[in-house]
Amino acid sequence: MFSRHVESLIEALKALPGVGPRSAQRMAFHILERDRSGGEQLVRSLSAALEKVGQCGRCRMLSDDDICGICRNPRREQGLVCVVESPADVMAIEQATAYQGLYFVLLGHLSPLDGIGPEELGLDLLESRLGDGTVEELILATNPTVEGEATASYLTDIARAHGVRTSRIAHGVPIGGELEYVDGGTLSHAFQGRIQL
Amino acid sequence: MFSRHVESLIEALKALPGVGPRSAQRMAFHILERDRSGGEQLVRSLSAALEKVGQCGRCRMLSDDDICGICRNPRREQGLVCVVESPADVMAIEQATAYQGLYFVLLGHLSPLDGIGPEELGLDLLESRLGDGTVEELILATNPTVEGEATASYLTDIARAHGVRTSRIAHGVPIGGELEYVDGGTLSHAFQGRIQL
Ligand SMILES: [Zn+2]
Ligand SMILES: [Zn+2]
Repeated sequence: MFSRHVESLIEALKALPGVGPRSAQRMAFHILERDRSGGEQLVRSLSAALEKVGQCGRCRMLSDDDICGICRNPRREQGLVCVVESPADVMAIEQATAYQGLYFVLLGHLSPLDGIGPEELGLDLLESRLGDGTVEELILATNPTVEGEATASYLTDIARAHGVRTSRIAHGVPIGGELEYVDGGTLSHAFQGRIQL
Repeated sequence: MFSRHVESLIEALKALPGVGPRSAQRMAFHILERDRSGGEQLVRSLSAALEKVGQCGRCRMLSDDDICGICRNPRREQGLVCVVESPADVMAIEQATAYQGLYFVLLGHLSPLDGIGPEELGLDLLESRLGDGTVEELILATNPTVEGEATASYLTDIARAHGVRTSRIAHGVPIGGELEYVDGGTLSHAFQGRIQL
């Protein structure tokens, strides 16, 4: 390679999700040839985020503060806690729904083979919330995958032990989706979960 | 948004080519949730590249040093100079061909409407090389676009004024390409450029 520093930059960019050797090279050249100020802005933003962004001590959402804005907001319904696998799920729910309760972010799902158990998902923290008497309903919004379902089932047991009721968000044929294009697993799930009219 | 620092990181990532709002968010979450050391490596590599990588004073290639490794290499054929539009073109030629001459990188093409004239492309630097008597052939490898062709034609005039011969790399149907899938412009070009057997 003609430049050790360009090579090292391309390597570092390849660590980003969805970035292969080709697009990493294009990004590196773009910054160095045409957008050095954009590159400097990225250095500043990334340094600041790495230094300042941690986890909310209550819900494990990415947060600039010890307790995040949602957990601090007294107008959110304190009796509702929605459990999701990732911060991106919180973003999606906040943007698409009128949900006004609180969250708990697992940052993963139970996966014993990968060494991810209750401790790694912060379930001690969730249990202490379930134990303090403010939570009325735990809404399980883990992904409809084998691991997500197993995690939801484990959480149901914990909630039951604390006398807290649980619910699972509905899964089925997407609104606007055409039956013939929906995958078999979803369709089968939609039949099992049919509602009497 | 739940975190000012995450928001600013997503904005900065969106400045990279090919990165939209969705993939910028996925990248930011990936770094902050799962790969902080990768994020720190990116800060280090990007800072170093922005500080250390400049242009070669002879061929305008991105380079860590005042004169790049290719220009400094006495075993390259000093009489051949290949003119390309971008550093990525140099990379592609070095990887795919046995070319052993030198380069000149325009970092663009003539585009009067965008205020890009001979000065912006470093043509004074190229002319001083053409004037010193070492260059025997200028190989024009600008892109086969209207602007690339106009730039090649302008370079031919400059070279002629210095008594240096020019050549244009061949354009036509790609090797392994099937005629019926080649675009009309390329096919027409291939007919005009046909070689007597
Ligand atoms: Zn929180
Ligand atoms: Zn050079």
